[in-house]
Amino acid sequence: MNPTEHFRVVKSCLGTKARVGEIITARGKVTTPVFLPVASQGTVKTLTPEELKDIGITIIMSNTYHLYLRPGIDIIERSGGLHGYMAWNKPILTDSGGYQIFSLASLRRVSDEGVVFRSHIDGSEHLLTPELIIQFQERLGSDIIMPLDECCPYTDDKSLVCQAMERTHSWAKRCLNHHHGRQFLYGIIQGGVFPELRCQSVEVITSLGFSGYAIGGLSVGEVKEITWAIVAETVTLLPEDKPRYFMGLGAPEDILTGVALGIDLFDSALPTRVARNGALFTSTGRHSIRNAAYKSREEAIEPGCDCYTCRTFSAAYLHHLFRTEELLAYRLATIHNLRFISRLVRKIRDSIHQGTFSSFQKEFLTSYQTTDEEVRLSQKQKWLRRVKVLPEL
Amino acid sequence: MNPTEHFRVVKSCLGTKARVGEIITARGKVTTPVFLPVASQGTVKTLTPEELKDIGITIIMSNTYHLYLRPGIDIIERSGGLHGYMAWNKPILTDSGGYQIFSLASLRRVSDEGVVFRSHIDGSEHLLTPELIIQFQERLGSDIIMPLDECCPYTDDKSLVCQAMERTHSWAKRCLNHHHGRQFLYGIIQGGVFPELRCQSVEVITSLGFSGYAIGGLSVGEVKEITWAIVAETVTLLPEDKPRYFMGLGAPEDILTGVALGIDLFDSALPTRVARNGALFTSTGRHSIRNAAYKSREEAIEPGCDCYTCRTFSAAYLHHLFRTEELLAYRLATIHNLRFISRLVRKIRDSIHQGTFSSFQKEFLTSYQTTDEEVRLSQKQKWLRRVKVLPEL
Repeated sequence: MNPTEHFRVVKSCLGTKARVGEIITARGKVTTPVFLPVASQGTVKTLTPEELKDIGITIIMSNTYHLYLRPGIDIIERSGGLHGYMAWNKPILTDSGGYQIFSLASLRRVSDEGVVFRSHIDGSEHLLTPELIIQFQERLGSDIIMPLDECCPYTDDKSLVCQAMERTHSWAKRCLNHHHGRQFLYGIIQGGVFPELRCQSVEVITSLGFSGYAIGGLSVGEVKEITWAIVAETVTLLPEDKPRYFMGLGAPEDILTGVALGIDLFDSALPTRVARNGALFTSTGRHSIRNAAYKSREEAIEPGCDCYTCRTFSAAYLHHLFRTEELLAYRLATIHNLRFISRLVRKIRDSIHQGTFSSFQKEFLTSYQTTDEEVRLSQKQKWLRRVKVLPEL
Repeated sequence: MNPTEHFRVVKSCLGTKARVGEIITARGKVTTPVFLPVASQGTVKTLTPEELKDIGITIIMSNTYHLYLRPGIDIIERSGGLHGYMAWNKPILTDSGGYQIFSLASLRRVSDEGVVFRSHIDGSEHLLTPELIIQFQERLGSDIIMPLDECCPYTDDKSLVCQAMERTHSWAKRCLNHHHGRQFLYGIIQGGVFPELRCQSVEVITSLGFSGYAIGGLSVGEVKEITWAIVAETVTLLPEDKPRYFMGLGAPEDILTGVALGIDLFDSALPTRVARNGALFTSTGRHSIRNAAYKSREEAIEPGCDCYTCRTFSAAYLHHLFRTEELLAYRLATIHNLRFISRLVRKIRDSIHQGTFSSFQKEFLTSYQTTDEEVRLSQKQKWLRRVKVLPEL
């Protein structure tokens, strides 16, 4: 067990379950609620570490599965760990890559021992076990690490979900036993969309005693109402004094809802991925800079935004860079979207401190036009089909 | 005519025709010899203006043809000119785009009036005249502008070259007449690989009186010996007190030779284009970072190099970014190559000041392994065929 305190709640919202907290690691303190940009391959796509810091990013997320395949754990270990390798000296959370193994890779055999899969890059065969996943993350030197879990696709087959959940529990125990305590290990709650399984999962995982708790296996194709119902019920069962982490969520409106339900950490590739497609967050919603309306707009994408992109360039210039497929486009859009999210979580924290979170949430959603739920779900399912979480139609 | 002095020679080399000079523009002074990175579409690919300045870039080059097609001159003019549009407040030289019209575009008709061509983007038909090209560059607000010239492909058909040269001369006169004098207009010497045509071209163009002189139509597929013979002869005929600009040259060894022959300005997409392919300049030559040897190299690409990339990341990390096709790769490689060239021209200027240019050149070329001439020429011709300067085999 970790000898030092890892998390404390600083301020709680009276009307909701929102709270401001502090995560303490050897590489510094992270104030929550917080959003973690995704650096799956050891780089937040298009950006340098200095740019991330300028944007206000305090912790990033990387992925053991990706780094294990390329460049390999050895190479990173010899480069002074992941922090030295990618020149990022603030906290890093690494995911086990369970989700990627069950989606990107070609599965060969899942057994109690572990997972045999073929690499999505060169087809080579690999066995990963809970013990190896912990060892890899210890060698990567990340600050917060995750156990291997079995991620089953979104399904209404309860026995399938139950089986994956039970294996996740057994792997969680082995991860905890194999863990040397220098890093903070979080537990992952599974159980699909079945409240009674979620309840059972919380019971088992919290009884083992982790430094934090992640909710996995949601936002994988189900409608939002179900997501939030499961989150609300799960959070109620989780201990107050440990951080709560919703894996794979990053749309502004979802962060607000997640915070209201008591979530402290969020990660998602969404803000950076949609940026590279030209979809930019603004106070009125997500807009495509490729739209002809921007061709001659001399103002910034979002007038008043303090990000480098908005301070320096017009929407017209960014439109031009996207239309001509200039590489600078993806970078400038990524800076804007990450700064938007970084400012959003800061405003959320401020409003919790000031006791105005609920009105801030309401106000934000009054002007921010969210993506239509039907469109969102079809886009999400299309994406999940592409990464094989959902079967082909 | 420009009322102010535009150029002065500060120091000349005794053993060669190399010299240090100063170009004066309303947006600042540029010390020569200097290399101009190419920002054809209003961006030096992958980089921000701040990064260019950190690298030591003092002047960049853009392209009227590209900007005319996208986003259009109107949009840039309304954004405060090209400087405001791309947020670059130091000098800009714009090329007319003659070279691109005769290579990228689909030519319809060349007459004394001008050029009718179809856009390489959408096939739309356009007429460009010498007068329009000057008007466009005045509206872009660049500091140094170029006349429209007829670029004929590399050929031993002297009458063809002569015809293009004569049209270039007539267009040069019209450009000069249409020019309002707020910007510095350079003349372009044509004449292919024929010394007597080059001589004739220098005579006509210098008699018109421009602020500087560019040598065009070289490095378009001929062997290097011919390139340098023509440059050497041409420079001898050019006035001492005007800047001399070799259009389209950017390999380190070529810059050294060009400087020795009296060239002051160089531009080329080569350093940035090869960077995006993973070919990096070092003191021992150009090396591919994709090579497996770099997979676990913990030192910088070039130990001792002061560029951001070398100060921050290992060669192993850059190798990984290229192998995983991460967008950050192209940017870090571009920074390194441009800084290499920027340091090279600074060292050239220093050595001219110190009277050690010849020994510096010799020393540099002792360790710097240049690309084999046969390989170079075949690569160049392949490239020129792709952009249609040379016909398909």
